[in-house]
Amino acid sequence: MTKRDTQDYDVPMVEVKRQAKLKWNVQSSDFASLCSNPIRKIVDNIKKPKTSIKTLIPLSLGDPTVFGNLHCPDVLVQAIIRNARSMRHNGYIHSAGSEAARISIAQHFGNIRAPLTMDDIIITSGCSGAIEIALRGLLNPGDNILLPKPGFPLYQALCEAHKIECRFYNLTPECSWEVDLEHMQSLINDRTKAILVNNPSNPCGSVYSKLHLNDILDLAELNKIPIIADEIYGDMVFGSDVFYPMASLTNTVPVVAVGGLAKQFLVPGWRVGWIMVHDRNEILKGVRSAYFKLSQNILGANSLVQSTIPDLLTPVPGSVEEESLTDFRKRYFTTLEDNARFTINTLATILGLEVVVPQGAMYAMVRIHMKVLTKIRDDLDFTQKLLDEESVFVLPGQCFGLADYFRIVFSAPHNVLAEAYTRLAEFCYRHQ
Amino acid sequence: MTKRDTQDYDVPMVEVKRQAKLKWNVQSSDFASLCSNPIRKIVDNIKKPKTSIKTLIPLSLGDPTVFGNLHCPDVLVQAIIRNARSMRHNGYIHSAGSEAARISIAQHFGNIRAPLTMDDIIITSGCSGAIEIALRGLLNPGDNILLPKPGFPLYQALCEAHKIECRFYNLTPECSWEVDLEHMQSLINDRTKAILVNNPSNPCGSVYSKLHLNDILDLAELNKIPIIADEIYGDMVFGSDVFYPMASLTNTVPVVAVGGLAKQFLVPGWRVGWIMVHDRNEILKGVRSAYFKLSQNILGANSLVQSTIPDLLTPVPGSVEEESLTDFRKRYFTTLEDNARFTINTLATILGLEVVVPQGAMYAMVRIHMKVLTKIRDDLDFTQKLLDEESVFVLPGQCFGLADYFRIVFSAPHNVLAEAYTRLAEFCYRHQ
Repeated sequence: MTKRDTQDYDVPMVEVKRQAKLKWNVQSSDFASLCSNPIRKIVDNIKKPKTSIKTLIPLSLGDPTVFGNLHCPDVLVQAIIRNARSMRHNGYIHSAGSEAARISIAQHFGNIRAPLTMDDIIITSGCSGAIEIALRGLLNPGDNILLPKPGFPLYQALCEAHKIECRFYNLTPECSWEVDLEHMQSLINDRTKAILVNNPSNPCGSVYSKLHLNDILDLAELNKIPIIADEIYGDMVFGSDVFYPMASLTNTVPVVAVGGLAKQFLVPGWRVGWIMVHDRNEILKGVRSAYFKLSQNILGANSLVQSTIPDLLTPVPGSVEEESLTDFRKRYFTTLEDNARFTINTLATILGLEVVVPQGAMYAMVRIHMKVLTKIRDDLDFTQKLLDEESVFVLPGQCFGLADYFRIVFSAPHNVLAEAYTRLAEFCYRHQ
Repeated sequence: MTKRDTQDYDVPMVEVKRQAKLKWNVQSSDFASLCSNPIRKIVDNIKKPKTSIKTLIPLSLGDPTVFGNLHCPDVLVQAIIRNARSMRHNGYIHSAGSEAARISIAQHFGNIRAPLTMDDIIITSGCSGAIEIALRGLLNPGDNILLPKPGFPLYQALCEAHKIECRFYNLTPECSWEVDLEHMQSLINDRTKAILVNNPSNPCGSVYSKLHLNDILDLAELNKIPIIADEIYGDMVFGSDVFYPMASLTNTVPVVAVGGLAKQFLVPGWRVGWIMVHDRNEILKGVRSAYFKLSQNILGANSLVQSTIPDLLTPVPGSVEEESLTDFRKRYFTTLEDNARFTINTLATILGLEVVVPQGAMYAMVRIHMKVLTKIRDDLDFTQKLLDEESVFVLPGQCFGLADYFRIVFSAPHNVLAEAYTRLAEFCYRHQ
């Protein structure tokens, strides 16, 4: 078992050398050129002010952990510590996720009207991983999907990467961002393979009524098109609004719901999301197995975090942990609700702005009345000048496909929001 | 801002209903049908014995944590606990990974001959995520890549999913699994866009000499084809063998190296891998930015685990932590080396088997002499019967593209290996 003498190769290698290529010419793939992040394209063109007396207040990033005022539940930290110490969650698990985690997700999100078992759950690398698998298992290049406008830009980015045509249905700001159903219907053709509904919505902060969700489901049923329901902000609703998982409202329309730990448990960096296949009539039989197949390409999400899912989603009823999680949720959602109310009330007093009342999540879309703010050209100009002059950073509506709006993330501490809105008011006053 | 009255839609909806589709017809995507895991295809056909007096000994899974005899370093557990408590690593980080982690990886793996900076590092969801991005950013559908045979089946799975043609170059068991360079050269044409080299190798356990790696690099240089170096088992070598990162042996050939925490730190389930772009002559300029773009599709790896990378890769010199990590490595690699020696020595006594001496990683490929084991049809038959009769589970060579071999993972505790090899000997004796 001696190593092969490399001298053996001298003769053929000399021949090869005669034909040696002279220059390197390595190109990146066509696929890479299709991949882009629409937010980045816009945000990268926004120039950061070089010097500013005022502290930067970023109300731009949909990450509730940024300011340090909101923390993940203590139950989660304790579970991570316990399970890291045990060293029993370090190895490979099933590519669709650990059984315990999938059972817990099925139990937490399933109910009599929309039952789930472990076999309906695929755990993914974050909710973006869930969206990618949901799309890639269902749509072919050249197929089209209906996407909300305004909407979360990752949908479009992933579709374009995979040559899926995006058809954008209008949301109506005058009707709390409900879907313009006639418009949605008008977009459908034979190659429409899915309707994506994001409820509660990023960037709108809207929460749809049961009535409205039923209308969307009726439309899906009539056209026999399955729903992809991005419900990552599910349960994060304010006041008397109620969140209805789409799957719980239909017996017939197959619903691929996606979610994750990111927003509800304040760990967006931990990259644990999931797909829940609601398919009582075996319409998605092939698609479901496609999803399991696709999960094998990159082997799912972190096993240590997965090990904590039962602690978070299915704590022992009546236990200290359950109580602690209830307290956590109450504190967290109350903060967001207070911030939403403060945002609505404060911005209502600013001439030239009009906030569409958010009902959930952590976002508000604010309309810029160009006729009032005559010195502003458009939403890009607005956000750039607001950043330059007041060091307040919000995202222009064009990031989400809708001009003349901007999005506020209102998860910051109250005093930070107060300061930001004071600057915003001064800014608008100056530009009238 | 009242909700739109859904009754408004009644008229058009009635019209739509007239054209309503009658049946659901939802197909999975063509992409999904291209995705498959070659190991699974074979392993799923292996029937698990229904009843067995003997305990199952799985020497099949490349996961060193399975038996509980090998643990991740204490430094890692402590870092996870500390950083989970701090709640400062829960938010979104850069899609290519946190700066601190990327700096640490660049520092640990870079050296004068193969310098690295943070901008050369993309952190990914496990090493499989790194391989997928490495391939997807460089190769188009219809391009081809040279892959080792036998080799890790994920390469082929990912290539087939993305319509990249696989061309398999032979490794020579008689020469410690060195590459048959003439064969490799004969496979190259104008659409050959990368050569993948896996060193140390899964499934072979081979570790290439500097001389042999230089031969491969010469071939790449002559043909002007970049190398993808899967070095996830780097440093896991035995005895006098030395691991040479390919990038450290060339000034001219661009090398995309992939690695991760999985095997060296015993946390394969934690899904943290990385790409290191070694490109001193700006040949991969476009490819490098493609990799960064692709990392935005799914947003990298878990932020909490990333936060521990500096603790693992760049501990303070002379610190207790550094010492503890040195001890960990010594213990771990000594165990593997002892197991390798025990495997070689024990299997050498079994008539009908021939083990190719492993030099690193945690694998050995064992040849089955069909002329001796006359009652065995092939490697599939061998592994099935060994499982049925002795409850020892090893993977058939066909999982890795080479018949008449089987792969042993020798990370199990000594007594478990001893028991498995005793059964293996009895099995072979019986089937002569």
